[in-house]
Amino acid sequence: MRKHIFNAGPCKLPDSTLKNTAAAVLEFGNTGQSIMEVSHRSADFQAVYDEAVALFKEVLNIPEGYHVLFLGGGASMQFCMIPFNFLKTKAAYVNTGTWSTAAIKEAKLWGEVQVVASSEADGFTYYPEFTIPSDVDYMHITSNNTIRGTEIFKDPDSPVPLLADMSSDICSRPVDVSKYAMIYGGCQKNLGPAGVTFVIIKDEFLKHVVADRPIPTMLKYQTHVDKDSMYNTPPCINIFGVKETLKWVKEMGGVKVMEELAIERANAIYNELENSKMFRPVVKEGSRSRMNIPFLLREGYESLEKEFLDFCKQKNIVGVKGHRSVGGFRASTYNACTMDDVNALISAMREFEAAHK
Amino acid sequence: MRKHIFNAGPCKLPDSTLKNTAAAVLEFGNTGQSIMEVSHRSADFQAVYDEAVALFKEVLNIPEGYHVLFLGGGASMQFCMIPFNFLKTKAAYVNTGTWSTAAIKEAKLWGEVQVVASSEADGFTYYPEFTIPSDVDYMHITSNNTIRGTEIFKDPDSPVPLLADMSSDICSRPVDVSKYAMIYGGCQKNLGPAGVTFVIIKDEFLKHVVADRPIPTMLKYQTHVDKDSMYNTPPCINIFGVKETLKWVKEMGGVKVMEELAIERANAIYNELENSKMFRPVVKEGSRSRMNIPFLLREGYESLEKEFLDFCKQKNIVGVKGHRSVGGFRASTYNACTMDDVNALISAMREFEAAHK
Repeated sequence: MRKHIFNAGPCKLPDSTLKNTAAAVLEFGNTGQSIMEVSHRSADFQAVYDEAVALFKEVLNIPEGYHVLFLGGGASMQFCMIPFNFLKTKAAYVNTGTWSTAAIKEAKLWGEVQVVASSEADGFTYYPEFTIPSDVDYMHITSNNTIRGTEIFKDPDSPVPLLADMSSDICSRPVDVSKYAMIYGGCQKNLGPAGVTFVIIKDEFLKHVVADRPIPTMLKYQTHVDKDSMYNTPPCINIFGVKETLKWVKEMGGVKVMEELAIERANAIYNELENSKMFRPVVKEGSRSRMNIPFLLREGYESLEKEFLDFCKQKNIVGVKGHRSVGGFRASTYNACTMDDVNALISAMREFEAAHK
Repeated sequence: MRKHIFNAGPCKLPDSTLKNTAAAVLEFGNTGQSIMEVSHRSADFQAVYDEAVALFKEVLNIPEGYHVLFLGGGASMQFCMIPFNFLKTKAAYVNTGTWSTAAIKEAKLWGEVQVVASSEADGFTYYPEFTIPSDVDYMHITSNNTIRGTEIFKDPDSPVPLLADMSSDICSRPVDVSKYAMIYGGCQKNLGPAGVTFVIIKDEFLKHVVADRPIPTMLKYQTHVDKDSMYNTPPCINIFGVKETLKWVKEMGGVKVMEELAIERANAIYNELENSKMFRPVVKEGSRSRMNIPFLLREGYESLEKEFLDFCKQKNIVGVKGHRSVGGFRASTYNACTMDDVNALISAMREFEAAHK
């Protein structure tokens, strides 16, 4: 029986992604080969890659002058590649939690890091205001914080190249891509299976590469731009899954509809958390991610954590355990999550509360 | 209709890998989730990972004191990571073709490279003899050359840590792992789908890491050893495919049986090439890979290249076009390739020859 999936990533994917990927594993189109067997240099696979790129450009309304890449290695590899390629003397970062902290650590290997804002003192429970300095090589933000459940909902104006890790909010709202020099992230939330990373990079920004630093071929963005992500064998089945998921986003009505549905899901859960006598939200109003909703038991109920997780399991709800670094609960409500899933969670919360009055 | 697949990688995989992966994409075990949705931190996925590692250790007879990793990025990322981690002053490489050349290029970013042997002057048509110097940080070989079709069939004794790119011959023969400090490769030949890379690394060798070089977290082997390949989200479905393929290798009788079958396939094709009046082998005797068999049209028939490829297509044979850098033909006969596939190719060669007498 299909579960109500609130995993933080890998996460719930559209039924069509699962059905079409499973079919392609048995036979990819009429090739007489599996999507796991077909050559990445074949016209058949090239068509999959091209469609994934074209769909991504279409649904995100990516303007001319940008390249889209699908690479291996995960967003964590981008934390390393960005400063390796672009940090000459100083870069600015906002620290909004675990992933920002990891990105900052890698940048410090190559130059100075100016942390322009941080919500660390308040347990990363809000998205801090910040001013972007004009004397840095680039400015980096984590637009949505998967673990802490905070999100920035605007595309900031920036006097310097603006880079965003959008691993967990990509395609959940319209984005003004023209404001960014680079947007990147792991695909394993709103875009498909784990094992592939998206990079949207401005051609103009590629020229900012540090000239006098020896950069390994695989870590140069230019390598992958020149070869359209095919410098080496790409993660083929993963890219196929991304193509299927983007097709679904488009068919559903695009990122504007994704945003409306995301707001509906997040509002329903936050409304419940505000009014519940047993559960409470963690993140401050105004910063509440629509993708990741951390919550805790209210005072007096804290000992029921494991019991509630067991109760969720009985109700076919999975993935609501909070990240191991923060504890508590977290409901990740990515694009493929439905109001049916959300209502199952809310019902479980109410039923559990009623049983423990 | 299922084709006779001679792709160089991604390549033909066992039917059981395709069937079981397709099923897991729809539902992974009884989890109520797809293998593309289940959390990489769940006990369910951990069991997949652990089984893949255990099977790999079992079929390759990997001794104590080694770690097995499954990472993203491909073997090309290893070309960069190896010298980044271990090249202090000088390393030795054998140059046996495209991939060795690429590995040498990356090493030169970090120190001196001594090319101890090369068959470049003869078009990389044989595997050169070499002596391993004792004054280098490590010695690197490419045990099988996918593009040129040469292979070394022994595990050399080495006075320094020995590293081997076994992307295209891993699990095609028993290997004395104890002779190596590290064995690595892309999994997309004998181990499963593209998008995941295997690394077998000796714990002792990890201590040889360059101490005073700042190495990005994702590029440090120690990072991935410490976290059992789970420092960041791994390519989950790809690792599932590897686990299924290793299960098949074991069920078939292990790497000794894989070797017997590989010899049978390669001998059949090479015998045909030696005796054919139309086709001829490229690689010299003694160096002929059992995994990749390049061949050419004999003198007087060279103009028939495209026509033969079209004929193969009619006969449901795919993947025999030579690599774009060398031309001609290449039959890749990895573990999942059968004598039925081989006989189809031989029949096509004979039929084509008869029609062009």
